[in-house]
Amino acid sequence: MPLPPKVRLVEVGPRDGLQNEKQPIDVAHKVALVDELTNSGLEYIEVGSFVSPKWVPQMAGSSEVFAGITRKPGVTYAALTPNMKGLDAAIAAGVKEVAVFAAASESFSQRNINCSIAESLERFVPMFETAQKHDIRVRGYVSCVLGCPYEGDIAAEQVAYVSRELYAMGCYEISLGDTIGVGTAGKTRRLLDIVGRDVPRDRLAGHFHDTYGQALANVYASLLEGITVFDASVAGLGGCPYAKGATGNVSTEDVLYLMQGLGIETGVNLERLVSAGQRISDVLGRQNGSNVARAILAASK
Amino acid sequence: MPLPPKVRLVEVGPRDGLQNEKQPIDVAHKVALVDELTNSGLEYIEVGSFVSPKWVPQMAGSSEVFAGITRKPGVTYAALTPNMKGLDAAIAAGVKEVAVFAAASESFSQRNINCSIAESLERFVPMFETAQKHDIRVRGYVSCVLGCPYEGDIAAEQVAYVSRELYAMGCYEISLGDTIGVGTAGKTRRLLDIVGRDVPRDRLAGHFHDTYGQALANVYASLLEGITVFDASVAGLGGCPYAKGATGNVSTEDVLYLMQGLGIETGVNLERLVSAGQRISDVLGRQNGSNVARAILAASK
Repeated sequence: MPLPPKVRLVEVGPRDGLQNEKQPIDVAHKVALVDELTNSGLEYIEVGSFVSPKWVPQMAGSSEVFAGITRKPGVTYAALTPNMKGLDAAIAAGVKEVAVFAAASESFSQRNINCSIAESLERFVPMFETAQKHDIRVRGYVSCVLGCPYEGDIAAEQVAYVSRELYAMGCYEISLGDTIGVGTAGKTRRLLDIVGRDVPRDRLAGHFHDTYGQALANVYASLLEGITVFDASVAGLGGCPYAKGATGNVSTEDVLYLMQGLGIETGVNLERLVSAGQRISDVLGRQNGSNVARAILAASK
Repeated sequence: MPLPPKVRLVEVGPRDGLQNEKQPIDVAHKVALVDELTNSGLEYIEVGSFVSPKWVPQMAGSSEVFAGITRKPGVTYAALTPNMKGLDAAIAAGVKEVAVFAAASESFSQRNINCSIAESLERFVPMFETAQKHDIRVRGYVSCVLGCPYEGDIAAEQVAYVSRELYAMGCYEISLGDTIGVGTAGKTRRLLDIVGRDVPRDRLAGHFHDTYGQALANVYASLLEGITVFDASVAGLGGCPYAKGATGNVSTEDVLYLMQGLGIETGVNLERLVSAGQRISDVLGRQNGSNVARAILAASK
């Protein structure tokens, strides 16, 4: 399969990233981050999550963030909405695109959201109805697609089942998440081959973690399988919640560098992206998690 | 092209790695490192370099290291020998395999070894004669194959020229080094396609740096092009001499994890390798540069 001429990068740093940083940051810093990401040319930014700040203090103030950001025409500003309450809050905040998540692992589903996979899917039914009424697009995340911290290996057929259910319910795109970063290139290709029989490949996105250093090899393997949408987190924000000190979300900078090298268009300016990533790393007082950003910033000293 | 059933990992940590660490370490620690690497199952270890300790203090004591290590039958213990003086010293130390290096970039050759590429190749002629007399195998490194810190892009045809010269002179294997880690998967494949017309692919090795996070994607791309030998450095020893704070040699642990995931045999035990890498990281007082090692060690806490 020839490489695609263009891919879409889904920036998940302000949500998936910041949610997994230890230290919550204030609304003004979040707004500044999203605005800088907008100015880098990204077409899709996941801005926040509508969850109880009791459970996820890092995501407090998402309504204010949505109110504060400068929206650029053509850019999607999305929110994660784990349940109906979250969806209602997102609608009240004027959000036009939301995301829901389900696990491909029963154990992970039970421990993470306290219900079975089937139950989690059922709970989404009224959410899809409400979203449709308000003309809101819904994106679906499937977690643990290449391994689970509790179960180990996850069958590709199980991932296909959850993916096709979400797709049938109304998700326009399914993001396949290697939540713990254990996947390698061959398994990634087999997974996409199997899930791609139930969901069109242009409706699938790759969401890789770099915990074992495999993320970019998996992105490249996905490109070879016809995938054209990739989630990534600026500066590698988020780390790995399952192994302290380990790497988490693949950094948007590293994915962008790969795409540039392959001659694949993204519309994103690397220099501006690196600048945004370093700024938020400074705010958090953490090392920049992007190899590309560290190399570029070190070379410019 | 189907993936190979087996690859050989060339461990360059004790030489390429330690040579680029700021702090020299003593002979006993080097011997312990090589012995632990032997016990991990590696078949090829580059033990040291025979250069003037005035220029490279990190490589002082290489003769003593060779005298101190426990040799396992079937394992190759190699030395880098930049010139005839180094080769004589290696022969005196009982070394049975050496490596020479040339650059694919004229500017890099001039600045790094103070002569043109052609001159550097000429200087090797008597070394090959001496090596042959002593039944010593010679491996060749070509640096800057996917980019040069001074010239930027390097033509694949230029890499092919240097590679075929070294091969014709008597190198049994040519290691293609992305010295500054700027290469991406598509360029890697094109390079191998072009160099592979002059040197058989089973005589080529990939030597990737992770400076821009691309190393494992390039390893995977190389596998797809039929390459079956990869250089790597335990714990990512070495860093990047051209950008302080940036990543350098790809870590052996990360490459091994990829191979295991792909079902490719290497004969190397990951647990022992991680243990060796963490031990030398502790000796050097540096963070372990392997994603896999950090993830495994974090999970075991």
